[in-house]
Amino acid sequence: MSPDQNALVQELLGRRIRGRRELLGISQEEMAARCGLHRTYYGSVERGERNVALQNIVRISDALGVDPGELLEGLTLTG
Amino acid sequence: MSPDQNALVQELLGRRIRGRRELLGISQEEMAARCGLHRTYYGSVERGERNVALQNIVRISDALGVDPGELLEGLTLTG
Repeated sequence: MSPDQNALVQELLGRRIRGRRELLGISQEEMAARCGLHRTYYGSVERGERNVALQNIVRISDALGVDPGELLEGLTLTG
Repeated sequence: MSPDQNALVQELLGRRIRGRRELLGISQEEMAARCGLHRTYYGSVERGERNVALQNIVRISDALGVDPGELLEGLTLTG
């Protein structure tokens, strides 16, 4: 559970979210609005800067039209 | 995204975590220690009282030996 591993988990989630949003062809601003989140906060999630909590993970997955389980699949702190 | 739906998401996750822990036959205290979390905090997660964040979701899934994707599968705020 090193800081590096913690950062990696956040970055992996952020990259998956970004990838899914790009598949929908919508901007960060549009996604933030659909999630009901501030656009700067949403952008920081995509950059892996946030230890995003359950409710926001589910808001984001709902807005993406994906299962939250898919966004978290395979994430681990044990290397 | 009503308060009820938010509460339900937390409760569903807590119940899944509790069910997995009970399958391992270990106490909340033992699980909290394995996760590196305080036992009262861990207990409140199982009771659905916490909007638990990504790092702790992954810590808990690691300690349970399950994929975090499995813990979040199907959770939604849209009813």
